[in-house]
This record gives sequence, C-alpha cells and structure tokens, in this order.
Amino acid sequence: MNASGPVIGIDLGGTKILARAVDPVDPVTPLAEQRADTPRSGGGDVLESMAAVVDDLDRMLVAGGHGAAVAIGVGAPGLVTSSGVLRFAPNIAGDAELAVAEQMGALTGRPVAVDNDATFATLAEWQRGAGRGSDNLVMVTLGTGIGAGLVVGGRIQRGANGFAGELGHVVIDPNGPPCPCGRRGCWERYASGSGMGRLARDAAESGRAERVLALAGGDPEAVRGEHVAAALTEADPGAVALVDEFAWWVALGLANLVATLDSDRLIIGGGLATLGSALVEPVRRHFATLVLGAGHRPEVQIVLAELGPSAGAIGAATAAAGMVGGA
Amino acid sequence: MNASGPVIGIDLGGTKILARAVDPVDPVTPLAEQRADTPRSGGGDVLESMAAVVDDLDRMLVAGGHGAAVAIGVGAPGLVTSSGVLRFAPNIAGDAELAVAEQMGALTGRPVAVDNDATFATLAEWQRGAGRGSDNLVMVTLGTGIGAGLVVGGRIQRGANGFAGELGHVVIDPNGPPCPCGRRGCWERYASGSGMGRLARDAAESGRAERVLALAGGDPEAVRGEHVAAALTEADPGAVALVDEFAWWVALGLANLVATLDSDRLIIGGGLATLGSALVEPVRRHFATLVLGAGHRPEVQIVLAELGPSAGAIGAATAAAGMVGGA
Repeated sequence: MNASGPVIGIDLGGTKILARAVDPVDPVTPLAEQRADTPRSGGGDVLESMAAVVDDLDRMLVAGGHGAAVAIGVGAPGLVTSSGVLRFAPNIAGDAELAVAEQMGALTGRPVAVDNDATFATLAEWQRGAGRGSDNLVMVTLGTGIGAGLVVGGRIQRGANGFAGELGHVVIDPNGPPCPCGRRGCWERYASGSGMGRLARDAAESGRAERVLALAGGDPEAVRGEHVAAALTEADPGAVALVDEFAWWVALGLANLVATLDSDRLIIGGGLATLGSALVEPVRRHFATLVLGAGHRPEVQIVLAELGPSAGAIGAATAAAGMVGGA
Repeated sequence: MNASGPVIGIDLGGTKILARAVDPVDPVTPLAEQRADTPRSGGGDVLESMAAVVDDLDRMLVAGGHGAAVAIGVGAPGLVTSSGVLRFAPNIAGDAELAVAEQMGALTGRPVAVDNDATFATLAEWQRGAGRGSDNLVMVTLGTGIGAGLVVGGRIQRGANGFAGELGHVVIDPNGPPCPCGRRGCWERYASGSGMGRLARDAAESGRAERVLALAGGDPEAVRGEHVAAALTEADPGAVALVDEFAWWVALGLANLVATLDSDRLIIGGGLATLGSALVEPVRRHFATLVLGAGHRPEVQIVLAELGPSAGAIGAATAAAGMVGGA
C-alpha cells in the first residue's frame, strides 16, 4: 500500500454511480467497488448519493485493513470548470451549476478532484491502457453520445475552461439531421450509439436491413444499435453494410481530428467498442482513404480501449492520488 | 542589440520569398528586408534563392554596423517534420522531401529553424501580436487556402509529426464540392479566398450578385474574391450578403475548433483579414449561434491578426533567436 493510503474514483453517469477504491500504485485493480443509481432529482441529491457511496467504500476498506480513503476523484458527464464546477450536464437534473469539488469536499472531509468523465477515462487509458507511450492521442468514447479526451504535446488538455473534447457536437454535415443541441449534422448524429440507431432505422425503412428489422420485431421505429449488433453476430450482410456505413462516419471524424491535431494514436472506447474488430477494421480501412497526407505521415494507430467501462473510475482515482502526492 | 547578434526570418511562399533581419529583442521591427521570387523549378533552386537572400541581408546588416546574422528561421508552406524536412508542399515544385534545415544550414553555415509557415505566424501573433496573454488559441490564416497554428495549454503544438493545424482539409460537408485533395467539402472549399470566389460565382450565376458580376466584366466564371471586396467598399447589398454567407462558413469551422480545443481566442489572419470588421463582425455574430454551450462559457474572443503579412517572417526570426539563446 502506498504510504498515503487508498483513494476512491467515482464515475458519475446519467443513470449510475460507479465507484471503486484502489491503491494508487495499482489503480487498475480494485480493493473495493460500489455502485448506486444516480438520483433523478439531480443536484444536491447526487452529491449525497456519492457521499454515501464513499461511506460504503470506507467501511469496506477499513474492514479489509486498508484504512479509509485519503482522496476522491469524480468524473462527471458534462462541462467541468478548472475549479470543479459541473456545468451544462444534460443528463443530470437540477442546478445548472453544481460545485462538485467544493461540496463533495465538505461532505467527505477529503480533497476531491473533479473533471469530465471522458477526460478521466482518457487519463486512465493514457497512463495504464491503450494510450501508453503516445504524446499525441485522442480517445473517443462512442456511447449514447460521444465523449472525448485529448492528449496533446504530452499532456492531458482541458482547454481554456475545462471544456475541451466536446467532439460529439462538431458539425460534420451542416445539412444533416437536427441535433438536440440545436445544430444540424453533429458527429454524434452519426458516430454514436444513437447515430447507429438512426442509420439502422433509415436502412430498415428502405429495405436494406431485413434481418435487423426482423430482430426489432418488424417495426423500423423500434430498431436500435443492439439489433445491429445482434445481426452482426450472425454475419448478416445488411448488418455488415450498416457497420461499414457507421465506420465511415467514425473515420471521417477521426480524420478531421488528425488533420487538426496530428495525433499518432486514436483510441475507441464506449459501448460501441464492444463490437471489437468488426468496428475497428472498417474504421481503419475508411480512415486510410480519408486522412490527409496519408503517404507523408507514419500510420496513425487506431486501437480499442483496454480498460473497459471502469476507465472513468480508474482515471478519477488516478487524479485523486495526484492530489495527495500518490503514485 | 542582443549579445548574440541579429537573426533572419524567412517566409517561403509559393510565389515569393519574404525575408527580414531583426534584433531578437524586437523581432517586429526590421533591421533589413529582402524579397525574391520563389523559383518555379522548386527543390534545390528554392534553397539557393533563400541562401542568396541571406547573403543580401548579411551585407545590409554589416553595412549597418550590426554584424552578420547568427541564425536563420524558415517558415515553409506544407508539412514540416520535427527535423526540418518539408513534405507535402503542393505549392513548391520538386522533391517530395526537401531537407530544408540541414541543407540551408550547409549553405549558410548557421543554425536553421524550420517550421510550417502558419505555425511561425501563430508564434509571432501569440508572443507579439493579437494572441498575447492567451494559453489556448487558434490562428487561422484565410488566404488562397487555409493555414492554422495552435496554442494549446500554453504551448505551440505541432502534433506527433509536425503536421498539426491542417484545418483547410477538415471536412465540414461530405456532400460538398470536390477538393483537389481528393475529399469533398473541405473547410478550404468555403472559408478561404478560393472558397469566397466559389461562393461568389455561385451567387453570380443565380443572379444574387449583380454588382459583383459587373465588376468581373459580366462573366460569372471570372468572378474572384477581389470583386466581392471591391463591391463591399461600395456597400453593395449583394456583396454584403456574400460576405455574410462566407462568414457563416468561417464561423462554423471556428465553432468546431472551440468544441474540440476549448480555445478562448481565435485570430483571423491572411489575405481575407484585410476585409477587417466587415468580415469579423458577421463571423462573431454567426459564431455566437454556432458555438457549443454559449451560455456556459466565457465569450470567445474573435480578433484580427495584428502583424499582417510579416507575421510568418517575424515568427521565423523568433524561432531562429531561440536556437542561439536569443530573446
């Protein structure tokens, strides 16, 4: 055990709070885990629930002979300022401004590191997972929406206000479908789980995805990404074509990122990453045709995330350890 | 004069070589200036011409009592590797790989710093111009094409291979007009001088730009950006509408950059920047409707470059000074 004691990493999601206590020397291996539902009432209730999860983990740590946690990290789904205030979090109800760092510090009596959940997942993959050894990478988490974290010039970059990496709302087709954010053709309309569902419904309506449609009970409106994934396990040609179309949109956004940042590694995480090579291989193939100056730059590595859904909590724990001088 | 002596900054363009010698303490004020045509034969002839310009400037410096230059910087129009090799420079003929740093060093007998021209212009604006005080900015140079330089987390960022900031080939409309690069709908097809010309020709052909068309002699194919600029000085409504459309595309790309990098300042340079407030004001207006989370982030400053067409040479001189421990 590190001299400073265990730390807790919390991944605050729109529906679940996932938390784990770890030894800072090995943040990938949990000493204890706990989860809770995210209160739909949002705001202060979310903080109380996270504090209760910390209490639970402390009891488990003490029972295991580790001593209570010495610091806490919280990854939150939205824009997080450099002073740990959560803003613009469409999946958390309540206050538009939630002072997570300050209030969680008061509730738990310990230092609290707060950042965007995708930023923490990126920190974890960079230090302990698929990003090791790169100084210029982007991790994109393809879930219901798209989150992202940036490593530029050997450092995690948060931007001027802590809002860097909001790639889901980069417009890639101004004539594309409307986005709840008010714009049209955001990358998230194509390259996320909901984008996959939209592409699949369009395909089902035009007769290009019969097996996917059948798995959805015959109603095009009921088609979701999981029906595509199910048809894909049967090697259904319609599903393969759909994933290929989806992969083109993923690759387009990644090529735009590389034109901007000249990253040498791109990490794909999130729920869609469970498609594995069925997704990554067509993404690589399309990327090769879309990236700028392909003949003039070393190949950009496109890889799957290695730490899975725990990456956010692992990164949060890593940041917590950093606050108390841990490994 | 700085103890280490004067330095030379060279801005290598597709048609002109612009060079100036400066005191590193004040790189904005030239001690001597020289220019030459860029040899169309490209390759080694370009290097010989730059070396001749260095000789000319050395003579002027010595005649002025300053002593010969002690280091040289070269900003080049293309992808420049971290070891100073120019690659993928469509506007310079000859070799696909031109070892500018090594060969200019051999020709001039002095250390030579080489980087992308837009990166050097950004360095100059950041340290001496419109970017002072920001740690997260993007400078876009809107000329025939689009160049860009990035300051992220308080440092100029070149990416993994020195190719960062190739924003002209970020795809913002996959169904848009074809680009010479092979893709469709690159930002450069809309938000550059050639993009302005294309928008203007479309408007002229559809009867939305009568004055612009008249200034071009009545032939829609002859319409260029300068005809729009000329009509704009007459406050022609068609030209105002065209610049407004152009500004929307500029703002769209800038909003995408801010979603990605969370920059707090955006600097517009290049030939189009001579439109001044007639361009920047509509860009600001459209940007406010396009930027993500407008109500949740401090206003992003959109400003004109301050150093004009010399920014590239000033930045090159600044980098040269850095090689010999100058200011």
